[in-house]
Formats: sequence, C-alpha cells, structure tokens
Amino acid sequence: MRQILDRIADKWSLLVISLLEQRTMRFNELRRAIDGISQRMLTVTLRNLERDGLVCRTVHPEIPPRVEYHLTALGCTLLDIIQSLVHWTEEHQHEIAHARAEFDERAADRSA
Amino acid sequence: MRQILDRIADKWSLLVISLLEQRTMRFNELRRAIDGISQRMLTVTLRNLERDGLVCRTVHPEIPPRVEYHLTALGCTLLDIIQSLVHWTEEHQHEIAHARAEFDERAADRSA
Repeated sequence: MRQILDRIADKWSLLVISLLEQRTMRFNELRRAIDGISQRMLTVTLRNLERDGLVCRTVHPEIPPRVEYHLTALGCTLLDIIQSLVHWTEEHQHEIAHARAEFDERAADRSA
Repeated sequence: MRQILDRIADKWSLLVISLLEQRTMRFNELRRAIDGISQRMLTVTLRNLERDGLVCRTVHPEIPPRVEYHLTALGCTLLDIIQSLVHWTEEHQHEIAHARAEFDERAADRSA
C-alpha cells in the first residue's frame, strides 16, 4: 500500500491525470502543458502510470508513429480525489502564503 | 498553487498528517511510526509542514526539552482528502497489483 501511495501522492502523476481528464493527449502536448517537467521525468511518470493501469498508451502505426495517452477506467476513479485536492489548494492558498510569510519572518528574527 | 501542490502531493507529508490526526506526537514517535523515513527527511517534512501552517511545533521547556507536533486547524482540513486517498488505495490495490504484473510480463516478453 505504501508503494501505491508513493505513486499517487506524487505531484507529476496528479498533474498528468488531471490533464488527461479532458482528452487523449500526445507526449509533447503533455510536456508543453506541464510547466517545469523534464522529458525524462514525464517519460518515467507516464511509464509508471501505465504500469499501474491508470493510463493507457496507444501507438498508432503511422509514419512517424503517433503515440497517445488516455485515462483508463481505473485512472478515472482518481479524478474526484484530485479535484478535491486542487479545490483545497485554491481555497487555502492565502492562508498558506500567510503562514509561510510569518514563519520566514520569525526565522529571520532569530538569525538577526 | 503548483508550489502548494508540491507540498501536499507528497507521500511523507500525507503520512505525517494522517498520523497526527490521532494525537500529538514527538519527533522520534513519528520516525518510528513511518517505516523507511530518514531523520533528515522527517526533519525537512516537519519543517515544511510547520512553515505551511499545517503542523504546530511546541517546545516544552524541560530538561531535555520536549518537542511535540500537532495538527493545526488548517492541517485538519486536509484529513478528509487524505482519508479518501487512503481509502482509494485500499479499494484498488488489487487492480493495481494485477496491472503491474501484466505490464511486467509484457515487458519480459518483449525483452525475451
């Protein structure tokens, strides 16, 4: 269970799943849509999501081959939870920013 | 918002928050309760959670000083979401294990 939590409680996985909620996407579309993810990290994330049965990878036999990713039925069952997390973050972002500013001020006072 | 998701969508943070749901705990109690976390990683995780205003650190002026951690009201608002995630993981762990076994079998076939 810890192993599964490792995978799910991961920022990149959650971002990929929430993007694929809208539609099937290609590798480079995902990469452009996720600010700050490296090619390597996206490759690893997609491979792990595919291995877990959350994302399906389809290779269309064209030249050059077109590779697309979409959510599986299992992957879709995570959408509600991810939505709650995103909603929580939106709702509480000001409180968190405020807490961070206070913490940093106290830390600065201590080191002054 | 990405910054906040970084913090929340993190396995160690989620485990610490879910342990502190039950009661106030000391550093070493948390460390013993979280299999596989290093002292350094727990220190960093607790400091970040404190900075975000999710966990409160109390130093009791005893000799030696007793340091305890408990959830703030803001931290408590995350408990429902974490509970959903843990519940999802329990509910779907067999499907994921099955998907992984199939994936690994296909990978082994390809490399044979």
